[in-house]
Amino acid sequence: MKDLKRFFEPRAVAVIGASSTPHKPGNDVIRNMLANGYTGKIFPVNPKGGEILGIRAFRSIQDLPEGLDLAIIILPAKANPAAVRECAARGIEAVVLAAGGFSEVDEQGRALQEELLRAIKETGIRALGPNTSGHSSMPHHFTSSFFPLGRIPRGPISYIAQTGNFATHTMRYISTEEHFGVARVVGLGNKLDIDENDILEYYATDPETKAIFVYLESFKNPKRFMKIAGEVTRSKPVILLKGGGTVEGAKAAVAHTAAMASDDRLIDAALKQAGVVRIYEYSHLVLAAKVLACMPLPKGNRVSFLAPSGAQLVCITDLCRRTLELDVPEVEETTRRRLQEISPSFIRMRNPVDIWPAASVRGMLEAYREGMEAVLKDPNIDAVVPILLLTDETGVPPLDFLVDLSRKYPDKPILTTFTGEKKHREAAQAFLEPGGVPTFPLIEEPFKVLSILAACRRARDRSDLRRIEKD
Amino acid sequence: MKDLKRFFEPRAVAVIGASSTPHKPGNDVIRNMLANGYTGKIFPVNPKGGEILGIRAFRSIQDLPEGLDLAIIILPAKANPAAVRECAARGIEAVVLAAGGFSEVDEQGRALQEELLRAIKETGIRALGPNTSGHSSMPHHFTSSFFPLGRIPRGPISYIAQTGNFATHTMRYISTEEHFGVARVVGLGNKLDIDENDILEYYATDPETKAIFVYLESFKNPKRFMKIAGEVTRSKPVILLKGGGTVEGAKAAVAHTAAMASDDRLIDAALKQAGVVRIYEYSHLVLAAKVLACMPLPKGNRVSFLAPSGAQLVCITDLCRRTLELDVPEVEETTRRRLQEISPSFIRMRNPVDIWPAASVRGMLEAYREGMEAVLKDPNIDAVVPILLLTDETGVPPLDFLVDLSRKYPDKPILTTFTGEKKHREAAQAFLEPGGVPTFPLIEEPFKVLSILAACRRARDRSDLRRIEKD
Repeated sequence: MKDLKRFFEPRAVAVIGASSTPHKPGNDVIRNMLANGYTGKIFPVNPKGGEILGIRAFRSIQDLPEGLDLAIIILPAKANPAAVRECAARGIEAVVLAAGGFSEVDEQGRALQEELLRAIKETGIRALGPNTSGHSSMPHHFTSSFFPLGRIPRGPISYIAQTGNFATHTMRYISTEEHFGVARVVGLGNKLDIDENDILEYYATDPETKAIFVYLESFKNPKRFMKIAGEVTRSKPVILLKGGGTVEGAKAAVAHTAAMASDDRLIDAALKQAGVVRIYEYSHLVLAAKVLACMPLPKGNRVSFLAPSGAQLVCITDLCRRTLELDVPEVEETTRRRLQEISPSFIRMRNPVDIWPAASVRGMLEAYREGMEAVLKDPNIDAVVPILLLTDETGVPPLDFLVDLSRKYPDKPILTTFTGEKKHREAAQAFLEPGGVPTFPLIEEPFKVLSILAACRRARDRSDLRRIEKD
Repeated sequence: MKDLKRFFEPRAVAVIGASSTPHKPGNDVIRNMLANGYTGKIFPVNPKGGEILGIRAFRSIQDLPEGLDLAIIILPAKANPAAVRECAARGIEAVVLAAGGFSEVDEQGRALQEELLRAIKETGIRALGPNTSGHSSMPHHFTSSFFPLGRIPRGPISYIAQTGNFATHTMRYISTEEHFGVARVVGLGNKLDIDENDILEYYATDPETKAIFVYLESFKNPKRFMKIAGEVTRSKPVILLKGGGTVEGAKAAVAHTAAMASDDRLIDAALKQAGVVRIYEYSHLVLAAKVLACMPLPKGNRVSFLAPSGAQLVCITDLCRRTLELDVPEVEETTRRRLQEISPSFIRMRNPVDIWPAASVRGMLEAYREGMEAVLKDPNIDAVVPILLLTDETGVPPLDFLVDLSRKYPDKPILTTFTGEKKHREAAQAFLEPGGVPTFPLIEEPFKVLSILAACRRARDRSDLRRIEKD
């Protein structure tokens, strides 16, 4: 595990196959490092020498100084085995192998991968890839990604992804459209040496990582994964999207990463035992992360929500109970009385909270603020979802109160969603998310995410219980 | 049923409680009619007389001319029974009762509702409401809504909603943010006289209505509903969101519309028998409608999709098989060969379609166009979902080909979704949707909607089969 420090905290990095041509991977990788303020040393290697992005380039691996932590090898597939050996000969103990064209492609690629594996084994070098889309380590302002990413926001979420898409396009989406940041992101590639278990083990003790999201199409060593995960989930949620859980999905996975199908029910039982929470939608890799980036797990699955529509109160309650395993409990009598105080008397206030009458009388701002504070104080409630109605008539009222409430009640996640006109929702989102209040465009989404978070809490509680029973 | 023509095609309408004060319901209702180009006559009634929005106002119901089709009564609850009798005395046979404050509120309201019911029964007048948010009939450019709606787009979707929210805020959302239109929209209110069965019967033979969406919290007469629905669903999809299907949801429904809980499993079986497709998310009332507004039901549940990411191919296939009851079948050999022709040889092309390699070689435009045409031609495929990757590098290519393909293959719904930067997705949406190609922001949504539409097709096929067996 110690080896991985070279990957996540490299002090000096070689880029084998660096290029002075913009938009080439060997150029973008250095641009990415500079854009993220990497403070270590960069050593481009290109047969032509000269300068690349203002940095002196070396003509060959042999010319490099000793003592480099990491080499990013961006060369054609067939040049990789020799490059690995040359790096090892130069004293480099860690490499990132960007090229594709190995076992994921054809028979020839499989042979080449065997050759690469020999080079890795014989030199004892640690390798990420091949066919990796790179990795990022934001506390160290470092990335090995050769996909143009620009500045990646730093935060407490770490990802492991057995797909090129995540560390590239999805990361770009997170950087440009979301308001949360990441600690570490690893595209696993073909997992020839480093696999999900090594990374998970590193994240386990990584103080920068508060929550771990994993996309896998195959387990390199399921037993080891479950063992590590069983430890990690006692302190950090581990949320997994397993691709290829159906027969047809598994066929698609063979085409994608040559992943072998595993018995989904066995995997499911083992993951449950290990406290890993499964998700089933790619979008939730982002939507659940945006909450965990700024809020803790809820203490349980008891939710209160405030809506401007009776139909929404009814339908969301049904959804919580029917499929999401969320409770929408009665609140205490003092809470009920407080809700009644802010509302016209013709509505008998309860949870979920019909906030429209109160809003018509007292204005949006006061109704939601007072209503939310009432349910946030209630010991029966673990999380609160305000469904804000923002229209041309209401405009966007000052929403600082949501930021204030989320600070005042830090143990109770507040997930905000909207009805009404899109332009107002977007203005509210642009204000709330940088303030640490996550928002969702469809009214059902915050509840689906809360369902995932409540499952993480149950997993941790089960694990605590097992430890107590053992003692 | 004939009576309802007065509601949907009124030639002359009285507004009892019309107001010259902007933003009052009695003013907004007339503004709405004018904004939608209502060509019938409007007769405002206000004790002060004068003019309202340039239209001569009458001082009392008694002063109105004879022969009006409809009166919209916007008066305090307790004034409603007398107003109904006066309207009837003036020869008006149809009324819309806007006021709330009846049985949905308290004991006093219940008594008032009894009195109102006597007025309706004794006069034989047909009444929508009370506590209705109004109704709209776009082929007739008419609306009785007193919530400021502006111009409502006309289209083939009709709604029945037992909630005020739908005909107000959700309709406003549809008008301003979506690109599809409605034929008829009815907010049922307290269903004192006209109920969902009357409206469903009207929609059944309404040539303007191609698909029917229903939100109900209670059935006035479930047997009659199932009987009418069983007929309608042979030619028009009926999609129902039933609020209060769980114990807790039913409690919320009592608070909302005083709806009595019914046994959800019995309802479920009867709906299935009648060919009505249940949905479980409020958002789907809009998301499924936007597809049916411009496309037919798919012929079956066999979907092809094209994605720029192997992980998305895998995860969406899993989702289709695990929960959505959608098939992602193998395509014919000729289709496979055509896909292979447009792609680099190292990818073995199949369904779902990994379009990224082809796009890297031939450009987004040609890869998606040729790939989509190949699967659209395949007899094993009923619907196609392109997941377009739109980034700062790709920009937004000319997307006319999607509009062209949806016209060339009118029997196969094309639902488009995106990955990449939001600004490009929104530009693509703004181009595609007015062209009749519905789009979805999250990659899972088009598949969830296709699952609903495939269920509608199955329901129709079952009904056809039953008829054949009978013959």
